[in-house]
Amino acid sequence: MQKYINPEMSLWPEIVQRPHFERGDLESTVKVILQEIRTKGDKALFELEKRFDNVELDSLKVSPHEFLEAENKISNELKNAIKRGAENIFKFHKSQEFESKEIETTKGVFCWQKSVPIEKVGLYVPGGTAPLFSTVLMLALPAKIAGCKKIILCSPPNRKGEIDPAILYAAKIAGVTDFFKLGGVQAIGAMAYGTESIEKVYKIFGPGNQYVTMAKQIVSVNDVAIDMPAGPSEVLIIADNSADEEFVASDFLSQAEHGKDSQSVLVTKDNEFADRFEIELINQLGNLSRKEFASLSLKNSKIVILENDDQIMAFTNEYAPEHLIIQTNNCDELADKVINAGSVFIGKYTPESAGDYASGTNHTLPTSGFAKAYSGVNLDSYNRKITFQKITKEGLLSLGPVIEEMALAEQLDAHKNAVTVRLKEIK
Amino acid sequence: MQKYINPEMSLWPEIVQRPHFERGDLESTVKVILQEIRTKGDKALFELEKRFDNVELDSLKVSPHEFLEAENKISNELKNAIKRGAENIFKFHKSQEFESKEIETTKGVFCWQKSVPIEKVGLYVPGGTAPLFSTVLMLALPAKIAGCKKIILCSPPNRKGEIDPAILYAAKIAGVTDFFKLGGVQAIGAMAYGTESIEKVYKIFGPGNQYVTMAKQIVSVNDVAIDMPAGPSEVLIIADNSADEEFVASDFLSQAEHGKDSQSVLVTKDNEFADRFEIELINQLGNLSRKEFASLSLKNSKIVILENDDQIMAFTNEYAPEHLIIQTNNCDELADKVINAGSVFIGKYTPESAGDYASGTNHTLPTSGFAKAYSGVNLDSYNRKITFQKITKEGLLSLGPVIEEMALAEQLDAHKNAVTVRLKEIK
Repeated sequence: MQKYINPEMSLWPEIVQRPHFERGDLESTVKVILQEIRTKGDKALFELEKRFDNVELDSLKVSPHEFLEAENKISNELKNAIKRGAENIFKFHKSQEFESKEIETTKGVFCWQKSVPIEKVGLYVPGGTAPLFSTVLMLALPAKIAGCKKIILCSPPNRKGEIDPAILYAAKIAGVTDFFKLGGVQAIGAMAYGTESIEKVYKIFGPGNQYVTMAKQIVSVNDVAIDMPAGPSEVLIIADNSADEEFVASDFLSQAEHGKDSQSVLVTKDNEFADRFEIELINQLGNLSRKEFASLSLKNSKIVILENDDQIMAFTNEYAPEHLIIQTNNCDELADKVINAGSVFIGKYTPESAGDYASGTNHTLPTSGFAKAYSGVNLDSYNRKITFQKITKEGLLSLGPVIEEMALAEQLDAHKNAVTVRLKEIK
Repeated sequence: MQKYINPEMSLWPEIVQRPHFERGDLESTVKVILQEIRTKGDKALFELEKRFDNVELDSLKVSPHEFLEAENKISNELKNAIKRGAENIFKFHKSQEFESKEIETTKGVFCWQKSVPIEKVGLYVPGGTAPLFSTVLMLALPAKIAGCKKIILCSPPNRKGEIDPAILYAAKIAGVTDFFKLGGVQAIGAMAYGTESIEKVYKIFGPGNQYVTMAKQIVSVNDVAIDMPAGPSEVLIIADNSADEEFVASDFLSQAEHGKDSQSVLVTKDNEFADRFEIELINQLGNLSRKEFASLSLKNSKIVILENDDQIMAFTNEYAPEHLIIQTNNCDELADKVINAGSVFIGKYTPESAGDYASGTNHTLPTSGFAKAYSGVNLDSYNRKITFQKITKEGLLSLGPVIEEMALAEQLDAHKNAVTVRLKEIK
């Protein structure tokens, strides 16, 4: 872990850098696989599942029987927890529904926006060591609330061709309409282009490794929209002497356990707190089952000591963290000054894991500084705002000459004429 | 122009195809230019302006004196028209401001969204035969309403190193903070990477030719967000026997005059109307100053006769037009059934040119079927929604066990521990 004490502002751009990993010939590898899917459809998908997930599948689609079995396999405690989490996520995203208002910009000129769901969306949930059923809830529930008709989900099966039961259970209660056993590039390609079994979607959501991310970027150029560019997860914690170092260390490690490319940053004006924190961090690290991952991630992690709150907020906004935790006496005041962040956790009883699972906010958030330009996934992500307008005779009489003047100055005759022929009829 | 009479649904995917133009080695050409800008900064920009815009500039930035001169050069009529248009665009986009609400998802668990402007945005306005000052208004006014601090605009100068006065005037009243004489790939590269004169921005907006579009796509992968993928402009008009063929033909040609790759489509269930329309179209075409462009574009244009309103709306939603004009007896009813479109113009006195200039809606809209997944530019495009949460002791007591159960099932110890250490302190 690196520690910076009152670094010059000129050093900040270097400090806010995220860990860099070589991507090598990722792009060409991924392009070849995408091309296979585009030309060979399902046949390519079965082959690729064999090659990359070591599994020979009979069918890509999860059957109703498999969903039923899954429900029997998981404990009631877990089912209830998933339901409670889902309820909150539902409530918060439901509250984001858009109310259309009609605006009369000039007498007789009426304009309004209408929020209309994207008809077909594709969700990707990675496999790996742990079953990320929380990501299923985060991606599918807003799609259901928005009213998307097709909610397709792809996730890689294990070597026996099975999907973790908690993932299937979450998919069922969250309203997924079609679940396919597909991982990595093959999942993204299938949803972007469509195959015999899998319908083409209009927008793809969800996290993934470097291959998945690259595939999403490639298909986003011409074929399909994506949620946002994705990178490794990260947290920035602002704490002061009033904070509990045990809490702060636990939050710091929550991020670190995600993987070796995660980054945790502590920003404080209290040297003494930083010292207490470092000791506690080492204590807690010893007890983690994923301590190997966490230790590697700590190598990317940083403690930054700054002089005052103004500096702290300027640095934080420059870093633009995916997750921002504020545990200080004046946490509300600092929260008001946040300009760049994905999701903000205020006060000592608000751990990041609340937002990861169950408080109601979405955990699919912009990383790597993309919070400067992107929002996290929310209900808007599944809708488009279409504009409508209707003009009366009176409205066109009033606004028509303005349009004619502007069209003339842009040398667009036909644009002017579309008004002129109507004004002639009205008069 | 092609005409389809009651085409089978199986032919629709072919009919909704947009004109295809070869892109050749566009990508590698653009990448070389971008790399020059990244490594040589301002020096590259001056060289590229000489190479591509045939101009030797002393300074890239438009001076206050130039703005003043511009104001004196344009007529009061045009100034007033620009002001009236700007007022409506301001009013409609201002009405889109987001009101935050705090939601208590579980007793003691408070979540809310806050809309925060993107600090630095870059706008591109193409040069070419006509001065597109309306695009300046459409891109800059919402940025000003949102509260973006830096609103940078780039537009190519003429061979004398000048920018059209109407463009400068529009930029001034719309709140542009920095105006640079830069066109094409060099404008996009400068705003994406930053140079000595030009600050790096976080999101780039605006239309452009194939080079500009390619440059936006390349920089969007790692460096900056963009508004949307861009393609040639297009309109789909639904009309019936009650429509005035003179109006419909004038709207059809408004689109066609944009350029040879534009597309206009008429969809109707009335054969007789289609015949009247075709005659009128040829009449009007003869009188256009840009009839060469328009004639070329008409080669891509289509008339589609369908049997009934259901078919018409299904076809329209499959086409997903940038602009949709509905001139039928039951226009409101059909407008309610729109699922995929950028902007919709309802009724006979609502020409597309109203929305292009002055009714208040934005004219930067998704083309090429991207309306299935993207909205047009609106106030949201300049903001991010950051989520906040604050949990009380009571809230964590209630929700904590749910989070612990879920984290355990995802095998994320440290996530669980962040709750456990807090619950221990509370109890």
